Amino acid sequence: MAPVFSIAVLLYPGADVMDFSGPVEIFSTRPQPGEPEFKITTFAHNSPVKAGALVYVPHASFAEVESRLEEYDILVVPGAHPDMLKTFIPSEEGKQIAGLVRRFAGLKPRGETGYRVVQSVCTGALLLAASGILAGRTVTTHHIAYDALKQVADQAAGGESGVNVVRKRWVDAGITEAGVRIVNAGGVTSGIDASLWVVELLVGKERAALMAEVAEFERRGEEGWGV
Amino acid sequence: MAPVFSIAVLLYPGADVMDFSGPVEIFSTRPQPGEPEFKITTFAHNSPVKAGALVYVPHASFAEVESRLEEYDILVVPGAHPDMLKTFIPSEEGKQIAGLVRRFAGLKPRGETGYRVVQSVCTGALLLAASGILAGRTVTTHHIAYDALKQVADQAAGGESGVNVVRKRWVDAGITEAGVRIVNAGGVTSGIDASLWVVELLVGKERAALMAEVAEFERRGEEGWGV
Repeated sequence: MAPVFSIAVLLYPGADVMDFSGPVEIFSTRPQPGEPEFKITTFAHNSPVKAGALVYVPHASFAEVESRLEEYDILVVPGAHPDMLKTFIPSEEGKQIAGLVRRFAGLKPRGETGYRVVQSVCTGALLLAASGILAGRTVTTHHIAYDALKQVADQAAGGESGVNVVRKRWVDAGITEAGVRIVNAGGVTSGIDASLWVVELLVGKERAALMAEVAEFERRGEEGWGV
Repeated sequence: MAPVFSIAVLLYPGADVMDFSGPVEIFSTRPQPGEPEFKITTFAHNSPVKAGALVYVPHASFAEVESRLEEYDILVVPGAHPDMLKTFIPSEEGKQIAGLVRRFAGLKPRGETGYRVVQSVCTGALLLAASGILAGRTVTTHHIAYDALKQVADQAAGGESGVNVVRKRWVDAGITEAGVRIVNAGGVTSGIDASLWVVELLVGKERAALMAEVAEFERRGEEGWGV
């Protein structure tokens, strides 16, 4: 039987709509018979949760996903306006999110599928940075937050983090010691490109191409946005 | 004072996430000081409403928006899988939506802003077709639904509707007798391009370019998707 990839999508107040809706749209494209499926579980500390201009009822609570973290193949972490993240990251919820990301990055690849991916979109990379998992890596984020990303990573490292921020649509930032792949999308719509690349990695180029066609999305290369 | 454009975004069970999230993302980009704002109101027959893989709490009920329809500048109508629309369009809710679209298309441009736009995304064009407002127009929709769109338009016309379906990212289908502009986006992500074009029309090229930059979205021309 084709595997089912389970995707946990973090929601929080002020999260950018497109940052998570892009990945959700791509991953939830109707599969062809016999093809792997992607199952979406949104989760948040509160329900309902207002993200951008829309209001959502998450499928699960933060605690529920936290308690079954090893059941997820992909963790999607969207961004928000950097001003909002500046106060959110040091908050109790922000710390719990950083803790969750750190724990996910320390899990072995999931037995059922052989994969584990943590995927930030846009300034969601700042939440990954706060967890410390980006230290020493080449990463990206929204183009207004390149400096902020470096600062958060350095702060988490208690000094120079060795983080190298580049202008790309998405970055494969390598795997953690446990074997979890870290992927950073650039700003907002870059999350669509990054998700298609994750599909390529997990299922294959053909499936990614079909998903892009269904979404009438002309894929853009990994290279920097606007260059 | 800069005008505030009010946008009513229809949600319904099975509506495609990106079809309405694309427009919401673009229209809700933070304005520069003194620039026109776009205010989003989602509405649905039921609350919460499951659209694609996500669950939403609409800002208003269908009846509320129906009773204050003249207060909205833009009506966004997302699509869904054509199989779902086949049963949804003749349903009581589907008929009410067609009625709402027809009434909106018959309103004069809003006094406060001088505009009124009905914007379908993807197979949302089928709901516009069911309302009869596409008769005699050149229109577009998702590429798997070109024939279905023509059929629904002909059925609404009780014969040949004179609808001409073309392969484009979006189409300016002209204005109604009352002065409401009809815009059809192609499939899914085309709604982003169509929304940027609507912003260009209502506010100007510069604002649309800034919104695209914030979203790290490289705009695609009006010409057919995939050509």
